[in-house]
Amino acid sequence: MIDRTIITPVILSGGSGTRLWPMSRAEQPKQFLPLTATASMFALTLARIADPTRFSDPIIVAGARHQALIEAQLDGRDATLILEPSARNTAPAIALAAIACEGLMLVMPSDHVIDDVPAFHAAIEAAMPLVASGWLVTFGIEPTGPETGYGYIEAGDALITGVHRVARFVEKPPLAEAQAMLARGGHFWNGGIFLFRGDAYLTALGEHAPAMLESANAAMNMATREGRVVLPDAAAFAASPSDSIDYAVMERAERVAVVPVSMGWSDIGSWDALYELGEKDEQANVIGGDVVAVESAGNLIRSDGLRISVSGVSDLIIIASGNDIMIVPRTQSQAVKALMSKRAS
Amino acid sequence: MIDRTIITPVILSGGSGTRLWPMSRAEQPKQFLPLTATASMFALTLARIADPTRFSDPIIVAGARHQALIEAQLDGRDATLILEPSARNTAPAIALAAIACEGLMLVMPSDHVIDDVPAFHAAIEAAMPLVASGWLVTFGIEPTGPETGYGYIEAGDALITGVHRVARFVEKPPLAEAQAMLARGGHFWNGGIFLFRGDAYLTALGEHAPAMLESANAAMNMATREGRVVLPDAAAFAASPSDSIDYAVMERAERVAVVPVSMGWSDIGSWDALYELGEKDEQANVIGGDVVAVESAGNLIRSDGLRISVSGVSDLIIIASGNDIMIVPRTQSQAVKALMSKRAS
Repeated sequence: MIDRTIITPVILSGGSGTRLWPMSRAEQPKQFLPLTATASMFALTLARIADPTRFSDPIIVAGARHQALIEAQLDGRDATLILEPSARNTAPAIALAAIACEGLMLVMPSDHVIDDVPAFHAAIEAAMPLVASGWLVTFGIEPTGPETGYGYIEAGDALITGVHRVARFVEKPPLAEAQAMLARGGHFWNGGIFLFRGDAYLTALGEHAPAMLESANAAMNMATREGRVVLPDAAAFAASPSDSIDYAVMERAERVAVVPVSMGWSDIGSWDALYELGEKDEQANVIGGDVVAVESAGNLIRSDGLRISVSGVSDLIIIASGNDIMIVPRTQSQAVKALMSKRAS
Repeated sequence: MIDRTIITPVILSGGSGTRLWPMSRAEQPKQFLPLTATASMFALTLARIADPTRFSDPIIVAGARHQALIEAQLDGRDATLILEPSARNTAPAIALAAIACEGLMLVMPSDHVIDDVPAFHAAIEAAMPLVASGWLVTFGIEPTGPETGYGYIEAGDALITGVHRVARFVEKPPLAEAQAMLARGGHFWNGGIFLFRGDAYLTALGEHAPAMLESANAAMNMATREGRVVLPDAAAFAASPSDSIDYAVMERAERVAVVPVSMGWSDIGSWDALYELGEKDEQANVIGGDVVAVESAGNLIRSDGLRISVSGVSDLIIIASGNDIMIVPRTQSQAVKALMSKRAS
């Protein structure tokens, strides 16, 4: 008998977090860094699913290069670790986990912040009846501004209390469209968090992306296992098309629902986002590490070791990590990617 | 017989260069760093007095902690090295050198830039007749702007071609006074470079600051010598009053002359000065070391090891040295001292 009340958390740790360079790097992406608190976002993600009456040990889907980091940050907690032999985006990654588990799956990125965990848990509870009957549920974040960096979900009719049929998915919109959606209401950010039965997901994947399902099944059939570490077959997984769960499944499946939720969510998608979340001093600086700031205001200044001393500077992002120092104006943190690629080339 | 045509260069290396922190530090002050060229300012100072038909081996007066640095940068050149047991400003330091040498002395700081060395040499030649007859000669730098950070010298009547009696010394002036002096003409920056007979200096010191002369004589009488290194007696030298050659001697003595000279002089007194001297790229940045600058203009960016990456920033001074990063706006480089003292406390 499959337990219909216990949820298997599936934590996706595939991102490389290039927008938070130089602290976030391919070998140590942002989810493993204590950027928002004294614990890393990965550790905070684990802490959200600690209640054993609701959650089983998690399945973590990650790149092989991060195995040691993950095992260190699991801090003794039991988990299944599925190491992706190659990056094929979220739909195939979630398929590997769905094949490895039975029952309910809560799929979460490892690099998001959720300040109001009770609100998150309440949203999960609201979705449980529909999930049990095979619906694919996504969580729609109440927007706090006309962000153009997220996809949106328009909620349709209510199915049960707090859960709506998805009317449509909206690609990352231009600003005017984002403002219009905000004004109309009923539109939510797509936060990339999902709840469904594993078999329901695999069935939908087989309908809408059968080559992906076939590759995932082959990769898991030929997987090698070392304790709780699962190594899917590299050649079989490499044959999979690469796509997100949104494009491959959620936007195509029939029974897709959204739970609107306001829970202090952020994907920490930029240094600007980290500034907005951070605790401000009297001059509206957000400071972390060995920093002296004199007559300086509105800066985000962080160091993981080097000593930073500034005077008379305003509204800058100043990040020191390892041997790298990066400086860009606030609100221009999209420039980080270009700087990083210049450094990598 | 004392040779009246050979000049002993006396290089003062006592400054700590705090205004160029974090590159300049007490243990390695700015004169030993290659800030303006591939050679250090100390090495460039030596290069200016290389002609053996005019200059003898130099006497270097320095702090004991810098002995190894100096010996390395002498690069095999013979020199007498007088190690000050304590810092007593320039008048006593020059007295130690005057006691150690006979004949003509050219006193120079070790941390100045002189672009037009032939002009400097011509100014020295112009002063030689007066120096031979016992005058104390200072070099007056043709001002290029109403600087408030330098003392000024007003030239009086011409004594011989190119050499004037000093009418008066002017303390670092307020801006309006500096502007007025520039408008009137006949006023020069006091560059801290002097030419005189050692005995003439000691005689004037005995008249105007006898306690200093007494301490210097005692310190040298009891000095220990190791090869060409002279260690004045610490207790005797510590008893000396502390004062500059300007206050103790030049402003009080009778026969004091100035040679006006325009020779591309700078005391590199700030990061701003280094920006002004530096070679600009197409965006008017002055860059040294491992720096990537994108869409950034008018910055001074230097690193002696760390990697600096900036985008979209303007008119900043960004200095990385050792484990320190310092950032201040250009034209505010006077803030450096306060930052350094916060770091030291």
